[in-house]
Amino acid sequence: MSNLQIRMANAIRALSMDAVQQANSGHPGMPMGMADIAVALWNDHLQHNPTDPHWMNRDRFVLSNGHGSMLLYSLLHLTGYDLPISELKNFRQLHSKTAGHPEYGITPGVETTTGPLGQGISNAVGMALAEKLLAEEFNRPGHDIVNHYTYVFLGDGCLMEGISHEVCSLAGTLKLNKLIALWDDNGISIDGKVVSWFNEDTPKRFEAYGWNVIRNVDGHDAEAVSAAIAQAKKTDKPTLICCKTAIGQGAPNMAGSDKVHGSPLGPDEIAATRVALNWPYAPFEIPQDIYQAWDFKRRGQALEHEWNKDFQSYKAKYPELASEFQRRMQGDLSKDFSKTVKEYLERCQVKAETIATRKASQNAIEALALALPEFMGGSADLTGSNLTNWSACKPVRANQWGNHINYGVREFGMSAIMNGIALHGGYIPFGGTFLTFSDYSRNAIRMAALMKLRSIFVFTHDSIGLGEDGPTHQSVEHVASLRLIPNLMVWRPCDTSETAVAWASAVERKHGPSALIFSRQNCPFVARNAQQIKDIARGGYVIRASKAKPDAVIMATGSEVGLALQTAERLEKEGVAIRVVSIPSTTVFDQQDATYKASVLPAGIPRIAVEAGVSDFWWKYACSAVHGVDTFGESAPAAQLYEYFGLTVDQIAKTVRQVISQQ
Amino acid sequence: MSNLQIRMANAIRALSMDAVQQANSGHPGMPMGMADIAVALWNDHLQHNPTDPHWMNRDRFVLSNGHGSMLLYSLLHLTGYDLPISELKNFRQLHSKTAGHPEYGITPGVETTTGPLGQGISNAVGMALAEKLLAEEFNRPGHDIVNHYTYVFLGDGCLMEGISHEVCSLAGTLKLNKLIALWDDNGISIDGKVVSWFNEDTPKRFEAYGWNVIRNVDGHDAEAVSAAIAQAKKTDKPTLICCKTAIGQGAPNMAGSDKVHGSPLGPDEIAATRVALNWPYAPFEIPQDIYQAWDFKRRGQALEHEWNKDFQSYKAKYPELASEFQRRMQGDLSKDFSKTVKEYLERCQVKAETIATRKASQNAIEALALALPEFMGGSADLTGSNLTNWSACKPVRANQWGNHINYGVREFGMSAIMNGIALHGGYIPFGGTFLTFSDYSRNAIRMAALMKLRSIFVFTHDSIGLGEDGPTHQSVEHVASLRLIPNLMVWRPCDTSETAVAWASAVERKHGPSALIFSRQNCPFVARNAQQIKDIARGGYVIRASKAKPDAVIMATGSEVGLALQTAERLEKEGVAIRVVSIPSTTVFDQQDATYKASVLPAGIPRIAVEAGVSDFWWKYACSAVHGVDTFGESAPAAQLYEYFGLTVDQIAKTVRQVISQQ
Repeated sequence: MSNLQIRMANAIRALSMDAVQQANSGHPGMPMGMADIAVALWNDHLQHNPTDPHWMNRDRFVLSNGHGSMLLYSLLHLTGYDLPISELKNFRQLHSKTAGHPEYGITPGVETTTGPLGQGISNAVGMALAEKLLAEEFNRPGHDIVNHYTYVFLGDGCLMEGISHEVCSLAGTLKLNKLIALWDDNGISIDGKVVSWFNEDTPKRFEAYGWNVIRNVDGHDAEAVSAAIAQAKKTDKPTLICCKTAIGQGAPNMAGSDKVHGSPLGPDEIAATRVALNWPYAPFEIPQDIYQAWDFKRRGQALEHEWNKDFQSYKAKYPELASEFQRRMQGDLSKDFSKTVKEYLERCQVKAETIATRKASQNAIEALALALPEFMGGSADLTGSNLTNWSACKPVRANQWGNHINYGVREFGMSAIMNGIALHGGYIPFGGTFLTFSDYSRNAIRMAALMKLRSIFVFTHDSIGLGEDGPTHQSVEHVASLRLIPNLMVWRPCDTSETAVAWASAVERKHGPSALIFSRQNCPFVARNAQQIKDIARGGYVIRASKAKPDAVIMATGSEVGLALQTAERLEKEGVAIRVVSIPSTTVFDQQDATYKASVLPAGIPRIAVEAGVSDFWWKYACSAVHGVDTFGESAPAAQLYEYFGLTVDQIAKTVRQVISQQ
Repeated sequence: MSNLQIRMANAIRALSMDAVQQANSGHPGMPMGMADIAVALWNDHLQHNPTDPHWMNRDRFVLSNGHGSMLLYSLLHLTGYDLPISELKNFRQLHSKTAGHPEYGITPGVETTTGPLGQGISNAVGMALAEKLLAEEFNRPGHDIVNHYTYVFLGDGCLMEGISHEVCSLAGTLKLNKLIALWDDNGISIDGKVVSWFNEDTPKRFEAYGWNVIRNVDGHDAEAVSAAIAQAKKTDKPTLICCKTAIGQGAPNMAGSDKVHGSPLGPDEIAATRVALNWPYAPFEIPQDIYQAWDFKRRGQALEHEWNKDFQSYKAKYPELASEFQRRMQGDLSKDFSKTVKEYLERCQVKAETIATRKASQNAIEALALALPEFMGGSADLTGSNLTNWSACKPVRANQWGNHINYGVREFGMSAIMNGIALHGGYIPFGGTFLTFSDYSRNAIRMAALMKLRSIFVFTHDSIGLGEDGPTHQSVEHVASLRLIPNLMVWRPCDTSETAVAWASAVERKHGPSALIFSRQNCPFVARNAQQIKDIARGGYVIRASKAKPDAVIMATGSEVGLALQTAERLEKEGVAIRVVSIPSTTVFDQQDATYKASVLPAGIPRIAVEAGVSDFWWKYACSAVHGVDTFGESAPAAQLYEYFGLTVDQIAKTVRQVISQQ
C-alpha cells in the first residue's frame, strides 16, 4: 500500500472521527476500519461519475452496514459528488444531506437507504439481478450497454441477520457473478467480541451457497483488496471477499474494541489518532494533494462519455431498443398503458365475473403485462396460490432471462430484492405471499415506503376467508397495520373492476410502493356506472346509492363489500335507506379533498364499517359501529367462519338497525 | 425395515391421505414422505408419555413443517394421546382438536404451534437451550432430573427462511447437542423442484454453523434413520440428519411431485395408493396389531415412573431445589414477588428519578430479578442500548450456565427462541431490540400472542426521540401496530413508577405476551398518590386531576405524558381546567369495566390525544384532536425533532384551546 493510498484512507478516518465528534453521535469504528478497503474499491475499480450520479451504467455501491455512513459521505465528498464539506460538518443535523444513516433521494450518490441490517446486501442482490436481466434483454453483440458491477460493504451484523441467508442463497443459485461483497471481518459487534454468539465459518457458509469466496485478505492492505476484487471479476459466481480488519483502525487506544463502534472517540483519542496517523490537519481540512488523488470527476466523465459513445452507435443500429431502454430506465410508462387499462376495465364490466380477487389480480396482470414489458413478477414459493404468474411469463433462472422470479420461501428477502430491482431501474417488481406473512417482510415494505420506491407487494389469502389453514395463516391485524406505514398505498379491492384499478394505480405510482390485498375466496362482481368506475381510483366511492336520503352508510372493503350490498338490499326492503361506500384504499381515499370525502361520507348520517379484520382502525371514520374480527381466527371452512365471527347479513343488518334507532 | 415398521408407517400414510380427502383440504405429501422417519423416531427414541403430555422431562418434538399436521395427529392418535379417531375424521373443522396446522393448547401432545415456516426449528432451539440451562442449574451428581432431547422435523421451506439461519447459527455456537433435526430432503416445494431456487449445499451450510451433519440417510428406511438418531446422541454438537425422501411416498402416480404437497390426492389416487401399499382397510380403520405396535402408553408410563422415582430421591436430598424446580416448571411466581414489586415501587416514589424509561426498565429488572431466578434476559446485540442486563446476570455461553443471552443481530430468531424457552418452561424469557426492529420479529410476537406465552418483548428507542439515527431507526407506526395484535399487552410507560408496574404486569401475565416499550431519552418523574399508583395497573388513569370540572382531557403515553402535564399547567394558569390521563397500556385499559373507563374518560368532555406516533390509532377513544407523527422521522437531535414535528407545549395548548372553543 503506497504512502498516498495510506493518506487517502486516513482522510476518511479523519473526516469520520471528526464529523462524529462534532455531531456528538454516530459510528466512527466502521469507516476507520474499512477505509483501506474503500481506497481499493473506489480508486481502483468503481466505475461511476460524481458529476452524474444517475448515469445508467454506473457500478452500484451499497453500504449494507449503513451505520458507517461517514465512510460513504467521505467518499462522495472526496471523489467529487455535490456534497460539500459544509454538509459533512453538519452530519446528523436536521435537513442536512448527511443523515445518520445513508438515505436514498437525499444525498447524491447514495444508491439505497441502509441501516436496518441485512437489507443493503439484499437490495444489492436485487440490483445485480436487475443488471443481469437487463443485460440479457437489451445487450446486443458488441454493445454491452448494460454492463456494471454491484459492490457491497457489509459487516457481521448483516451476516447474522436471517435475510442475508435468504438473498445470498438465491444469489448463488442465480449465479449473480457481478455481485461482489466485501466483508468487514473485524470480530466485533455492539455487545463485544462476536465469537461468543457468531462463531460460524462464514466462508464455508458462502461456499455452500455457491459463491466464490476469497479468504484471508488483509483489509488494511489496499493493494491486496484491489487484487482480490480483480480476481472476483473473473468468476461465474457471486464473490465474497473476506477482509480482516480492526474496527476503528488508527485509534491507538480504542481500535479493535466495541467502544469505538457507536460513539465519538472523544477529544483525547482523536488527538492521539492524529498523532498516530501522522495527520496534522485541522478537523475537516483535507490537503489539496489528497483531494486531487481522490477526485474522480474527470475519470468518471470519461467513463460516461465512452458509454455514451457506445450507446449512440447502439441507438443507430437499434433505435427502438434504445428508446425502449431509456424509457424503462427512466421509469416512464409506455404510451399504450392507459389505453390497455381502459380496455381491460371495459372488458371486466362486460364479463362481470364472480371470482376470487386473487384470480382477478392474475387476470389484471395478464392484461396489463401486454403494455408492461418491465413487469418483473414473482412469488415466495406460492405462485399457484398468489397467482402472480401469467401466460406469457418466463421463469428467471441462472443465466436465463425471465420475468417471473421463484423467490423460494423467502418473504423478507423477496421484498428487499424487489426494492433493489426498483432502485436499479428498468423493471417494475411485484411479488406475492400470503398476507399474514407480510409480517416476515414488514421492514422491507417500510423501507420501500421510506425510499418512495415502486415496489408492488401482492398479498393474497387476506382474512379468515382463507378457511381451513387456520389462525397461523389467517390475517386479522394485517390490513390495518399495513395502512399505518406512512407513504404505503394499501388496496383491498372487492371485485374484478376494483382489482384492475388497484393494479393500474400501483403501476402508475412512480414514487411509492403499494400493497395489493386479495381474497382466496370468490367475490361477487358489482355493476357500476361510468362515474363509479372513475371514482374507484379515488380510493373510496358510493358503490350503491340509496333511493331516499340514506338512514345509514355502510363502509366496507374487499370481500365484505358483497355482504354490505346484500345487507343494504335486505334493509331497503324493510324501508331503510342504505348507502354503501366501498373503500378499496383508505390510504388513497384519505388523500382526496374534503369536498369529495364529504360527498361520499356525508356528515350527520351514521356510519357502520364492515371488514374482516381488527376493528380499531375504522374509528377514524367516525363510525357508530364496526363489524370486524378482533381475535385470532379458527381452522374451519370459510363460510362457517364468516357465520362464526358474525360477518353475516343478519348480524350486520341488526347492527345497522340498532345504530339507526339510537340516533 | 421390518414389515411391521412398514405397516406402521403406512398407517400414517392412510390416515393422512384419508383425513385430507375428507376435509377436502390439507397437505398429504409431507406425512406420507416422513412416515418412515416418524416410525424411527417415535418408536425407537422419543421418550414421552401419552397419558401425561405435561411430564416435565419428556423429549420435545417439534413439527417445524407444520402443514404436515396429519403426521403429528396420526402419531398422537396411534401412540395413545387423548385424540380419538373421531377427531381425525374431523380434521380442519371448527372446534376440532385437529386444526389445519398444529396448535399448542388445543391438542394434547402438540408442543408448539407451527405453520409459519422456520419458527418451529427456532422454538426448538429455545427448548433445547432451556433444557441445557435448567440441567446446569438443577441437576446434581447422580440426579439428571433435566435430561431430554428436542427433536425437530423440518423441510426445505424452513431451511430457506432466514430465521433458520439465525437460530441454527446460534445453536451451533452454543453447542446445543441435544437438539436433533431431521430434514425432509425431498427436493420439492410448492413451486416445484427446488433446485431452481434453492440449490445450496445444506449439509455444508450446517457444518459451517458447527453442527454435526449426518448425510445421505435413506428417509424411507426406518432402521437407517434410527441408527442416525442413535449416532446423533453421541456428539457434542447439534445434529442435522439429512433424510432423502419422496414427497407423497406411497402414492404411485403422484409421489415425488409438487401436486401432492397441498391438496387431496383424489379418490382414484387414494385407491391406487391403497393397492400399492397393500393397505386394504377402510378410511380411518387401523388394524389392531398396528394399534398395539404404536401404543406407547405403557412404555411412556414406565419412563415417567422411573423419572418420578429419581425425582423423589433428588427431592429427599435437595428438598428446596426440588420444590423450586417444580415451582419454576409450573410457571408460578415466588412468594416474594409481590412484596418485591411493592417495595420497589415505593422506592421509585422516594427516589423520584428523571431518567430514560429504558434506564427505568433496567432498574426494574435489577429489583425484580432478586425475586425472579427464572428471569432469562437477552438482547439482539444491543445490550448496552436496550439495558436488558443487570448487575448479577451472567452471560449464556456454550456449556456455561447464564441468564442473559447475547442473541446476536437476530431479532426474529431471538423472539422465536424466547417463545421456545417459554414453551419449555422453567424460565421467563425477555429480550430486547430497538422498537423499529420489532418489524423483523413481528410474526414471532404474533405467535406468542396466539399461543398465549409469557414472552416479554422489550423495545427501546421508541420514537423520533431517539434522534440522530434518523428515520430508519425511528418508530412511527410501531406502537400502534403492535396494539393491533390480538392478545398482546403493550405498555409504553411514562416514568419509573409506570415502568415498574409494566414489568410486574408482564411477569404476572402467565398466559400471554407483553411488549414493553421504552424511551431512549429522559422522562420526568411524576408524583402520585396511593390510588394513582394502584390504578397504573389498570392501563389508564387520571394522572392529573383538574381543580374544576375539566374543560378538556389530554390523553398521553410514555414520553408525551410529561408534555401533556406541562401543557395542563400552562392552560390552568389561563383558567382552563385540564385533566391529564396517562394510558401506559391501551390494551389493558380496554379490558377494564365500562364504569371505570367512564370515570377516567368522562362522556361529554372533549379529548385530545398526544403520542409521538401515527395518529390513526387514537380515534377509537373518540378524540377531538390527535397530536401525532404521521410521516417518517428525520435525522437530528431529539429536542429539535419534537419542535419540528409540533410536539411542544405551545402547539398542544393551541390545539386544546381550539378544541374547547369549538364545543
